[in-house]
Amino acid sequence: MAEFMTETEERASGVPGPGAPGEPREKTGEGTGPADAQEAAAQLERTRALVDPELRAAVESLPGSMRRIGLYHFGWQQADGSPAAGNAGKAIRPALVLAAAAALGGPAARTAAVRAAAAVELVHNFTLLHDDVMDRDTTRRHRPTAWTVFGDTDAILAGDALQALALRLLAEDPHPASVPAAARLAACVVELCEGQHTDTDLEQRAPEAVTLDEVLAMAEAKTGALLGCACALGALYAGAGEEEVAALDGFGRQAGLAFQLIDDVIGIWGDPRHTGKPAGADLAARKKSLPVVAALTSGTPAAVELAQLYGKPYREEAAEAGEIARIALAVERAGGRDWAQAEAADRMARAMQELARAVPDPEAAGGLLALAEFVTRRTS
Amino acid sequence: MAEFMTETEERASGVPGPGAPGEPREKTGEGTGPADAQEAAAQLERTRALVDPELRAAVESLPGSMRRIGLYHFGWQQADGSPAAGNAGKAIRPALVLAAAAALGGPAARTAAVRAAAAVELVHNFTLLHDDVMDRDTTRRHRPTAWTVFGDTDAILAGDALQALALRLLAEDPHPASVPAAARLAACVVELCEGQHTDTDLEQRAPEAVTLDEVLAMAEAKTGALLGCACALGALYAGAGEEEVAALDGFGRQAGLAFQLIDDVIGIWGDPRHTGKPAGADLAARKKSLPVVAALTSGTPAAVELAQLYGKPYREEAAEAGEIARIALAVERAGGRDWAQAEAADRMARAMQELARAVPDPEAAGGLLALAEFVTRRTS
Repeated sequence: MAEFMTETEERASGVPGPGAPGEPREKTGEGTGPADAQEAAAQLERTRALVDPELRAAVESLPGSMRRIGLYHFGWQQADGSPAAGNAGKAIRPALVLAAAAALGGPAARTAAVRAAAAVELVHNFTLLHDDVMDRDTTRRHRPTAWTVFGDTDAILAGDALQALALRLLAEDPHPASVPAAARLAACVVELCEGQHTDTDLEQRAPEAVTLDEVLAMAEAKTGALLGCACALGALYAGAGEEEVAALDGFGRQAGLAFQLIDDVIGIWGDPRHTGKPAGADLAARKKSLPVVAALTSGTPAAVELAQLYGKPYREEAAEAGEIARIALAVERAGGRDWAQAEAADRMARAMQELARAVPDPEAAGGLLALAEFVTRRTS
Repeated sequence: MAEFMTETEERASGVPGPGAPGEPREKTGEGTGPADAQEAAAQLERTRALVDPELRAAVESLPGSMRRIGLYHFGWQQADGSPAAGNAGKAIRPALVLAAAAALGGPAARTAAVRAAAAVELVHNFTLLHDDVMDRDTTRRHRPTAWTVFGDTDAILAGDALQALALRLLAEDPHPASVPAAARLAACVVELCEGQHTDTDLEQRAPEAVTLDEVLAMAEAKTGALLGCACALGALYAGAGEEEVAALDGFGRQAGLAFQLIDDVIGIWGDPRHTGKPAGADLAARKKSLPVVAALTSGTPAAVELAQLYGKPYREEAAEAGEIARIALAVERAGGRDWAQAEAADRMARAMQELARAVPDPEAAGGLLALAEFVTRRTS
């Protein structure tokens, strides 16, 4: 499963939009396009400007080695401690915290939620540090991963320290929402752990031993949960009631699932406009991504062919002889591509319904909508 | 460095007491002996009875695999999910939380602090899960460690989940002290991480490249910090002021260092009464324990001989030919044993001073004192 907010996020595509009833955009009569993309980009930039000082101060408060590894991981320092240009990712999650706070509480709530936004970003980066160790991933944001530079032990410890730092930030925040926010973020961490467990477990199983429901549940726990939690924390900081908080959590979760579905489609067929990652990379790695499992469990003749192809380990000669293309075609013929695109549209429609429930005013909901469209690459 | 509250804790010894001025025990005119040991044992038993239901409910609230690994690690389940007799350790840290709360706030504060005690024990067990992965330790509490049963990934994830669970317990605790307690516990986790980093770093260095100050700082971060935090949390739950909280933190830290020094002495010369771990095990593993580093940096002729012996990797033939005994003798002749015993006595004296500052009434301080004496094995 491709990791959210890594190189894959550099890609952009035009995937079918949901066009669902209840989508706030329809009420304003606007389509999606460059204007929304600019809106999202402006939000992400503003988020970095607001949250980075808090985030960096938190990482710099760490002792010795934890500080060094943290600063390296966030792209603020080279491995030798010299300054680096900084590429701490696109800040989608903190942007969701701030946008949710602003949607329900206006600019004052946005400002008040900066620490919560930093806490969510710390949790995200704690999971990246640990996931990279577990998955033996060697590149993150175009740089060697922390474990390849500092070793497994120090990468794990730095991740542990970032989790603690996130919860300390909230515990030290005098805002009345900080305590329920901390409880919610801690509960989300447990869900993320179970999601990562399921991901590694599914990857070890035979292709035919994996169900679509399992992969969907894994994607929700691993990707949807923290996006939902980010939105929920923003709502809490705006003083929202339980129902609005739950609706915004649902919005983030469903948008997260839509993102994952689309990311998986790009991981097989590549990006129609840009190509950040070579098309077929997930197939070469025999990833049990959502379109593949949908295809494998489709009961079609193409599913049988796919199971046979996927059961063989990757060999460069076979890949060069067109095996990857044959696998992609089998997934497509078994309906995996169509299913993923329809499911993504459906998830986005559900996200829009949740958003309309929490934030009925389309103008107020605009920021969150632009971010959801940005992550699902309906605009670029 | 021997891990606190493992098999090593089964050992007991009579090491020299501090006999320092300001020691509350002197005021009552009591010596240390079987009565104190019984008092400590009774406290630990009462702690288990109070804290275990909270702890177990928390671990049972985890999803699927995290729950399974947690229940195994705490000794409540076998690896296959069947019930186990349960050996979750001696509960020193939760006992310190409850004893500190009782010392400053009486029985009501003790009862109120049960959740905080469970949170501290969860943090302790999160670090055990991760340390065992990093140190490749295969036995914990007489059972195979979690990573040997469930794999590195799941052991790391279960540790992550226990940390989150600890901070969630505090965030969901309506007690007014829960928020500063959460901030303090999170800050302590950062210190524990840095301590574990330093420990693994020191073990990789050449013996002559390690200073005594570094090993003492490491022992304070890795062992003292959480004992201090446990006492501080108890004080917070008793409504104590900043100075009392700081003094009780200092008490726990100093007692923790005394424990580590004595544990290191036992790791070389064995226990004069019981022998849980074979004498010399730490020497065979070439551990840079406190007496060894004190000896190596003593500037004595024996230090030169020790450096030569310690520089050679362990070989069974050499060990059988009396090499371990020669190393132990060199550490002793270089003054490592005397230094460690004097330093342990000094740390206990400092612990007593901190305790007297926070809890001037010897009767009220009795519970904490009995626990400190128990962990430093002045009584058994």
